[in-house]
Amino acid sequence: MAISRSVALGLDFGTESVRALLVDLRGRELGSASVSYEHGQLTATLPGSRQRLPHDFAFQHPQDWIDASIKAVRKAVKQTGIAGQAVACIGVDFTSCTMLPAMRDGTPLCLLDRHAGNMFAWPKLWKHHGAKSQTARINALAAQRQEPWFDRYGRIIGLEFLFPKMLETLEEAPGIYEAAEVWLEGGDWYVWQLLGPGVCPAERLPRSTCQAGYKGMWSAADGFPSRDFFGALHPKMADVVASKMPGRMVAPGQLAGGLGTEMAKKMGLKPGIAVSAAVIDAHAGVPGAGVWEADTLVMVMGTSSCHMLNSKVERVIPGVAGVVRDGILPGYFGYETGQAAVGDAFAWFRQMVGAKDFSQLDRQAALLAPGSDGVLCMDWMAGCRTPLMDGNLRGAFTGLTLGSTTAHLYRALLEASAMGVRWIVDVLRDGDVPVRKFVATGGLPHHNPLLVQIYADVLGTKILVPAARQGPALGAAILGVLAAGKDVTGFANAKAAIQAMAGAGKAKGVEVKPDRAAVKVYDEVYGRYRALAQAMAV
Amino acid sequence: MAISRSVALGLDFGTESVRALLVDLRGRELGSASVSYEHGQLTATLPGSRQRLPHDFAFQHPQDWIDASIKAVRKAVKQTGIAGQAVACIGVDFTSCTMLPAMRDGTPLCLLDRHAGNMFAWPKLWKHHGAKSQTARINALAAQRQEPWFDRYGRIIGLEFLFPKMLETLEEAPGIYEAAEVWLEGGDWYVWQLLGPGVCPAERLPRSTCQAGYKGMWSAADGFPSRDFFGALHPKMADVVASKMPGRMVAPGQLAGGLGTEMAKKMGLKPGIAVSAAVIDAHAGVPGAGVWEADTLVMVMGTSSCHMLNSKVERVIPGVAGVVRDGILPGYFGYETGQAAVGDAFAWFRQMVGAKDFSQLDRQAALLAPGSDGVLCMDWMAGCRTPLMDGNLRGAFTGLTLGSTTAHLYRALLEASAMGVRWIVDVLRDGDVPVRKFVATGGLPHHNPLLVQIYADVLGTKILVPAARQGPALGAAILGVLAAGKDVTGFANAKAAIQAMAGAGKAKGVEVKPDRAAVKVYDEVYGRYRALAQAMAV
Repeated sequence: MAISRSVALGLDFGTESVRALLVDLRGRELGSASVSYEHGQLTATLPGSRQRLPHDFAFQHPQDWIDASIKAVRKAVKQTGIAGQAVACIGVDFTSCTMLPAMRDGTPLCLLDRHAGNMFAWPKLWKHHGAKSQTARINALAAQRQEPWFDRYGRIIGLEFLFPKMLETLEEAPGIYEAAEVWLEGGDWYVWQLLGPGVCPAERLPRSTCQAGYKGMWSAADGFPSRDFFGALHPKMADVVASKMPGRMVAPGQLAGGLGTEMAKKMGLKPGIAVSAAVIDAHAGVPGAGVWEADTLVMVMGTSSCHMLNSKVERVIPGVAGVVRDGILPGYFGYETGQAAVGDAFAWFRQMVGAKDFSQLDRQAALLAPGSDGVLCMDWMAGCRTPLMDGNLRGAFTGLTLGSTTAHLYRALLEASAMGVRWIVDVLRDGDVPVRKFVATGGLPHHNPLLVQIYADVLGTKILVPAARQGPALGAAILGVLAAGKDVTGFANAKAAIQAMAGAGKAKGVEVKPDRAAVKVYDEVYGRYRALAQAMAV
Repeated sequence: MAISRSVALGLDFGTESVRALLVDLRGRELGSASVSYEHGQLTATLPGSRQRLPHDFAFQHPQDWIDASIKAVRKAVKQTGIAGQAVACIGVDFTSCTMLPAMRDGTPLCLLDRHAGNMFAWPKLWKHHGAKSQTARINALAAQRQEPWFDRYGRIIGLEFLFPKMLETLEEAPGIYEAAEVWLEGGDWYVWQLLGPGVCPAERLPRSTCQAGYKGMWSAADGFPSRDFFGALHPKMADVVASKMPGRMVAPGQLAGGLGTEMAKKMGLKPGIAVSAAVIDAHAGVPGAGVWEADTLVMVMGTSSCHMLNSKVERVIPGVAGVVRDGILPGYFGYETGQAAVGDAFAWFRQMVGAKDFSQLDRQAALLAPGSDGVLCMDWMAGCRTPLMDGNLRGAFTGLTLGSTTAHLYRALLEASAMGVRWIVDVLRDGDVPVRKFVATGGLPHHNPLLVQIYADVLGTKILVPAARQGPALGAAILGVLAAGKDVTGFANAKAAIQAMAGAGKAKGVEVKPDRAAVKVYDEVYGRYRALAQAMAV
């Protein structure tokens, strides 16, 4: 009885705001509240300063994460009408790699008067792009030294990863780098704050295997890159892992610790309830979409797309950005692939042709036959993530005639996005990683049924669109449930919890079936798409 | 004194109307009038019939040519305030291949009651596209038989040529083909009417070497294709040249004959004045632009572009559509090359992006740097004429990013059009045909200074835009002057006449100079354009 009345809290930290979602153990939403960060993204100036930040720089205020989450939890609890004491567990998803320098007592450097005036003391937001030259050097060195971990990232480290951002600070603000006692992900810092640094010393702070694995060049088997590598990168960085990265690795869905009294009091929750290790926001979409089993591709489709897959096999596949054991769910190898511009590209096109909204474009595109009368698009308007890992590649439209209309180009763009996924699926399968089922979640699938139909037709398979629109927050709550364990929740394993809380029966999602004739047409179009990709990638 | 008061008449027959231009021998415009054809283009139904014409079919009414030209001449003469008797010569330019079946007395078949109900009795307009299968068979047979004339046309005969249109009638309406005693170009028929068929028998009717050379597979050295070839094409066509194509070949600028009394009376002109052989409208643009010398490329830029060059050398160049001795001016080999969509493609783009007119697009495009920030266009929205001669090729935009704007794509389209000309120039030069100077005429250059600047920068050379906006009509008038001869006009040769009537001193044109920095950028862009063409032409 106590179990069925238990409530799980999912905290979904986005770029502008945090959402608190309260669900019961059957996945029913009890309450939900989103609270914006007071300082939002810090891209123009820092608090208390009038100095303009460089282009492409982006920071956040760590106090915003604390304050906004407390408000969101209190609002959500108030909505449910139940006592905050009924909340049995907490899961946290976070943007990544959003990272910061802190002291061993957990204080962010930016909150110390002596460092607040230096922008490098502030948390760098995932989209901070200040580390271009450092990223290039890390890639060059890793290639030259044939670093064993390099293959796992498709032999390209991203500009948004952890160590490029650390190296940038070391080179641009060596005083800040030196003063930092602990470098860590924002999500890990937040979980540490939940536990209370007073209770949980820095040596025991829980670091997410998901964030470390996908953004920190870490693996369960090999740990972080070697002292040699870091020493070759920069002499002062040789001991970075041993001296500045204390903590223990914990997988999402595993127990990070109990909620500390201070934060429990502020949130109005019961101290000691289970807190899961943090998870990357997109990755939380996997359990949030009701997916517990291996071999299901979860397509999180928004401004860009992240395609996640749990698998029982570990394979190094050229072009696949990250393979992390326990990276998404415990017990699986988590594969992350992605497309750099999806919704972003649609919005760009809409604006370019002067359309007020998407409704007319969608209507006209739906009237055209699959294949857009020969107009073909290459969806690389923000480069190609998987499988070519090249941000400098660019998009294209081909097959244009004087009879081509806006609708032809728009439909070709939607089709190109679907072709991009098909290519990713081919790459995974060619690498001996099975892909059997498809789930579409994120913002786009609910808004655009034509897009999901095109995906189904291009992939030649049915696609499930779960009903839940708060996928990542629900996924975070489920990971909290897993961290609480069977004694508290009654769920023996991830499968049981996910099925009960986000499974098909609960989700009442929509299943989109492929159209046989369209599938045939797209087989041919896909061949031309791949040929175009080959021609353009030189 | 008599000479300087002499007046030349140029008649410019377009698709919708005819223009009469009166100029003195210094090229000063005395009067000009344009009169629309009563029946316009016959694309929906024929006069007196309610039967719908097939898609892609287009005819004209021959009486329109007579009636509209008489009205236009009378209007223009009235404007000048001089006597019609002062007109000393007539030149005629005409669309091509616009062709018709006629009787030996000059009567068009369509004006005989017994044939008027059959659409194939009517003049086929140049853009009539009913002969697709016939064109394909002519090309296949010419290739198979290695016909000696085939190389002169880049080994591809166009859908709009003379013999495909004749073969179509033979196969679709054999009775009309049989009944026709004379097959001829519309321009030749009109000149014949000027002379008067009663005075000039069919055996002596002047056929334009320009029209026969560019559209009729004829050359001065070899004549028309052989009896063997036509017999293999269709048994009933074997004797077509001997039995149904009477007349003598006359070059534009040579005397076709004297104006007959009947037409002289109707037009209010003096009987017996010199009439030049007809010339294709675009080709008349060459003398009309003041070009008399060899090695100057005259770019006639409109919805599509025709680039004409007179040369002292005859070369067979793959991809160049026509090389005709005396084709443009007497004494030269005339080379015709072209781009299938120029103004048409600009209009298509404008409409697609919902721009009301070109002014804002031009303004924004002018603000961008040469190279359109990496956006590249392939201007094949209506296929590629020179040098690939493939109407099935299609256009493209590449190099697209989320930062690409409408202006980037539009500028890239203008640049692509210029790159297409540069390619044509390369093909001519690689084939040992010198190209030394550039003149831009037709509708576009006067309207779009940005376009001409881009052409100058891409070609790396200055471009002259003559002031004359009635280029073809002026060119026709000059050809009339040449036909009249030195005794009447005082001009010893084409050079003297063209210099006096349309030369730089008279034309007061604009000379657009290349920008050195832009030329350098475009050298690089051109390399990418050619690479893209190669990638897309497979």
